[in-house]
Amino acid sequence: MHRQAFRAEYHEVDSMGFAYYGMYFNWFTRGRIGLLRELGMRYADWEREGLFLPVLRAECQYHMPVQLDDPVELETRLVECRRTRMRFVYRVFKGGPDGGGPAALCAEGATDHAFIDGRRRPIDVRKHFPAIWASLTRILPGGGA
Amino acid sequence: MHRQAFRAEYHEVDSMGFAYYGMYFNWFTRGRIGLLRELGMRYADWEREGLFLPVLRAECQYHMPVQLDDPVELETRLVECRRTRMRFVYRVFKGGPDGGGPAALCAEGATDHAFIDGRRRPIDVRKHFPAIWASLTRILPGGGA
Amino acid sequence: MHRQAFRAEYHEVDSMGFAYYGMYFNWFTRGRIGLLRELGMRYADWEREGLFLPVLRAECQYHMPVQLDDPVELETRLVECRRTRMRFVYRVFKGGPDGGGPAALCAEGATDHAFIDGRRRPIDVRKHFPAIWASLTRILPGGGA
Amino acid sequence: MHRQAFRAEYHEVDSMGFAYYGMYFNWFTRGRIGLLRELGMRYADWEREGLFLPVLRAECQYHMPVQLDDPVELETRLVECRRTRMRFVYRVFKGGPDGGGPAALCAEGATDHAFIDGRRRPIDVRKHFPAIWASLTRILPGGGA
Repeated sequence: MHRQAFRAEYHEVDSMGFAYYGMYFNWFTRGRIGLLRELGMRYADWEREGLFLPVLRAECQYHMPVQLDDPVELETRLVECRRTRMRFVYRVFKGGPDGGGPAALCAEGATDHAFIDGRRRPIDVRKHFPAIWASLTRILPGGGA
Repeated sequence: MHRQAFRAEYHEVDSMGFAYYGMYFNWFTRGRIGLLRELGMRYADWEREGLFLPVLRAECQYHMPVQLDDPVELETRLVECRRTRMRFVYRVFKGGPDGGGPAALCAEGATDHAFIDGRRRPIDVRKHFPAIWASLTRILPGGGA
Repeated sequence: MHRQAFRAEYHEVDSMGFAYYGMYFNWFTRGRIGLLRELGMRYADWEREGLFLPVLRAECQYHMPVQLDDPVELETRLVECRRTRMRFVYRVFKGGPDGGGPAALCAEGATDHAFIDGRRRPIDVRKHFPAIWASLTRILPGGGA
Repeated sequence: MHRQAFRAEYHEVDSMGFAYYGMYFNWFTRGRIGLLRELGMRYADWEREGLFLPVLRAECQYHMPVQLDDPVELETRLVECRRTRMRFVYRVFKGGPDGGGPAALCAEGATDHAFIDGRRRPIDVRKHFPAIWASLTRILPGGGA
């Protein structure tokens, strides 16, 4: 599991004073890229080497609003990694205005991704990028498949 | 059903050259507000009168990428409207580069919303905003509930 | 001069209820690409052919706020085109809530751009893309230089 | 002067692989709010108390592109604070891919702001918010005016 702490920013907040629902998907991207970095991989390098990770499906449930400047904690987990696709799940928490108090679960989400190459064709990541495959599956509960 | 036509814009496109997955949720918002306008209602007025529509859940499935400047057609439907919540579904199509050719289904999504007031409390829209309730339920296949 | 009409959208509005200042730069991009399209050129094709237009400098003055759903009119002009750079200026107007009433000038801006190739090197557009050079300079008051 | 370190994120990068020019204005907002926080003030509280800071003018010069995942350092300075307006300037630096190497100046910008109240009227911040005025002017080279 990867954790990141940040604040809801002004340009992310809507006229209700809440973080806009679409912004959570930017946060999820931040979480994915941070998780990969923690595993020793840079997604920017993946794209340079011809490995892309388009989103097949995304969802988010919003339990409680996040307001401007609220300290946010994002948890990102890689829960599934197959040869041609992977799945991440996310949880968004906030603490009190000064970062104190118990954290409250604000949102939960998930994204599914395909592995594709520079010509936009699906690829078998275990075959074409074995080092990446090894790094990704090392952290999965039951290994990859 | 409400239809809107627009193009994928430069700031919406990522380094793969595709419309970024989070941008589709902006398009869905555009669709919702356009559908309400077609029914004679302005969402900006709702907020001024103390009726807000936060998102409870959002999802999108991405079937085919949309590229910079692709002509996009967005269909928005209100499929459920209850006293305390409503649900919209969306379909994103693209035509050929010159707008010709058969439209291809690129993405499908849905959003669920609560009705809340200016103090962020859930409200019964039929009770507190009967004219809005009447407009919303008029277009539903089986009426509201 | 190129004109576009649109509305300030929900995700563009901040907690003051005004279109966020950074969003105007997205509108300017929309204006540039629209102006090029009106001249018979697609910027997406430029990038595919190896001609890129990074921004060297951008500015905007904000005279009056634009609010959610306000009808906006954007004017885009190409005011200078040299072999290695070009300059666009923009004006943002809004009408009344129902599109009636005299338009009010809300903002004015400008962007300067370089011409670069796929390897990120400055290029002489007249030399390397003579057809584009011809189209661009045809609309300038005193021609290009 | 206030410093912040972050990375250029995926949703901020355009099809050239560079941070999109409009995103720098989001970074500037991050810098302003961070600078105020360092001075013991939360901009979110300002808005709750009826003090707003709309942008009158914004500009940015782009010297060198920032790419996905590049470590960025943002410097924010408050260079002028009058009773009815203030001015911030910004500098954006990047280091090497691993954060090493000398920092390179990528962009410089400035924003001018008015002080307005909840009814969108200009206010004299020294008169209506003397504690905020004292905090703001304490850090200026020659004091406020």
